Amino acid sequence: MKTKILAKLRDEKGYVSGQALCNEFGVSRTAIWKAINRLKQEGYEIEAVQNKGYRLVNVPEILSQKELLSIRKTQWLGNEIIYYDEVDSTNNAAKRLAEEGYGHGTIVVSDAQTGGRGRRGRSWSSPAGVGIWMTYILRPEQLLPANASMITLVMGLAVAKGLEEATDTHVSIKWPNDIVMNGKKVCGTLTEMSAQMDYINYLVVGSGINVFNKEFPQELSEKATSLYIETKKEFHRAEIIETIAEKFEEYYDIFMQTEDMSRLKNEYNDMLVNRGGQVRVEGRESFDGNARGINERGELIVDTWEARRLVSSGEVSVRGVYGYV
Amino acid sequence: MKTKILAKLRDEKGYVSGQALCNEFGVSRTAIWKAINRLKQEGYEIEAVQNKGYRLVNVPEILSQKELLSIRKTQWLGNEIIYYDEVDSTNNAAKRLAEEGYGHGTIVVSDAQTGGRGRRGRSWSSPAGVGIWMTYILRPEQLLPANASMITLVMGLAVAKGLEEATDTHVSIKWPNDIVMNGKKVCGTLTEMSAQMDYINYLVVGSGINVFNKEFPQELSEKATSLYIETKKEFHRAEIIETIAEKFEEYYDIFMQTEDMSRLKNEYNDMLVNRGGQVRVEGRESFDGNARGINERGELIVDTWEARRLVSSGEVSVRGVYGYV
Repeated sequence: MKTKILAKLRDEKGYVSGQALCNEFGVSRTAIWKAINRLKQEGYEIEAVQNKGYRLVNVPEILSQKELLSIRKTQWLGNEIIYYDEVDSTNNAAKRLAEEGYGHGTIVVSDAQTGGRGRRGRSWSSPAGVGIWMTYILRPEQLLPANASMITLVMGLAVAKGLEEATDTHVSIKWPNDIVMNGKKVCGTLTEMSAQMDYINYLVVGSGINVFNKEFPQELSEKATSLYIETKKEFHRAEIIETIAEKFEEYYDIFMQTEDMSRLKNEYNDMLVNRGGQVRVEGRESFDGNARGINERGELIVDTWEARRLVSSGEVSVRGVYGYV
Repeated sequence: MKTKILAKLRDEKGYVSGQALCNEFGVSRTAIWKAINRLKQEGYEIEAVQNKGYRLVNVPEILSQKELLSIRKTQWLGNEIIYYDEVDSTNNAAKRLAEEGYGHGTIVVSDAQTGGRGRRGRSWSSPAGVGIWMTYILRPEQLLPANASMITLVMGLAVAKGLEEATDTHVSIKWPNDIVMNGKKVCGTLTEMSAQMDYINYLVVGSGINVFNKEFPQELSEKATSLYIETKKEFHRAEIIETIAEKFEEYYDIFMQTEDMSRLKNEYNDMLVNRGGQVRVEGRESFDGNARGINERGELIVDTWEARRLVSSGEVSVRGVYGYV
């Protein structure tokens, strides 16, 4: 009930009378009063004025299932929210939960990861109280495994748009799905799939976003940044999670209409940091060229001096010829 | 040491002296004698003749890690063999083992499965003592997830060739990877993948082979058969597992040279039951046509009255217009 009261206070800009809460939730004034007190103890600043009622004055930077549920506005994403104070990695947790049967739309969030991972098993530092470490469980009906790799671009676009909205600052995508601010990485995404040959059991799409970090170790400081470093603003992680979820839900539904990027590629390309610039593609074979943006398959179009190349996947990294991105 | 002695007795057609075994394994005559006795207790018929030594007269139908290891001739496949008397499913067990870090080539075998599964979650009856329920863990370096679906065809070909050799009877493949004898299914294969977008964590390729079943329930008897029903012969499951493993290792290595079916499609097509016949493709869209065999991508080429179609995957079943296959 605390979650419902919190959601109600969030929705109302002004005061909500105790009686209105009693009526809405069918409980006594005392029960409401106790719930309000528990919310206060958790750090929510709630003003109580006689003859007016309760008003939410300030929301602390709290990451919890209750906070995430009370702020939730999405249709299907976050229909289940699993929160941990600490877990090995939200992708691992999501895979375990998916194996147990947790459904499409489940969001897994942890305050800290003890074994955060990036692509190809690289580690991802994920201390408590500093970032957003979250994973979506998706079970896309009908989508063929061969088309699943594009979901990672959908997530990249959702995070980029969500962070731009949350920070009011320019944010870019480094193909395929890193998010960069001022040329430094603020978010990485790791998508994993459990599939039969023609059928996806589930996808887990996990993003790590550096939010409150004030600095990075020497070896990372040239490459990594945080929302705080770039903006010097304060943030509520739960609000950012909700903003990204709304974006993802919107883009995912568009993606599934065509099962490709045809209706999203323009928005994606508008945020692409490498677009129109010289990039170096490093993979089984390496080459330089001019990045033109993604096509409807999510492949990066790169024009070399010889020919147009489509970069899809594999052991490929793409970086700007000048500097990191 | 029992496993090594058993392997040695298998290799030698005639007698092996106790002294030779002592020398080879660096243990006493008494230790050899004890190991031989334990093998006899397990059902191995071993003749002991003074001044000649030991000879393996008969091998019982035993499924065990020792039996499988002692018979093993492959290079890398079966470098680890995990045996269960009973498990939920060998694919599930293999996935758990793969998550724990078990490597490329691990073979998981169970005498019984309590939750045997076929494609799309269909159940697969897997009682004890009756069939081969086994799964390979594969970690193909470099192979792209988009090419992984062809592994299931490689397995189909290996099982078909292996069963043909083991039974000395004609065996066919029903695209993509069911194995049929006289128009009835004797083996199904379920391939599952854990992947990042451009990188395969692992594949588990599981096959269920009906070996000793004497009959099937009414509702299955038109569709399912066993090696025993088709041949009235006796079999050693461990030998069949080894024969298939040798075939798979050979075909897998060929497959990985090109990462497609170009060097295997002729052998595959020679065993294809539908080839040259009328088939009905049932999927998002259904149509009839004439099956021409697979192409180098493993797609089934079907000529309809209008055009040539390539059938790759999705909710597709292919059956002969006349009868089940």
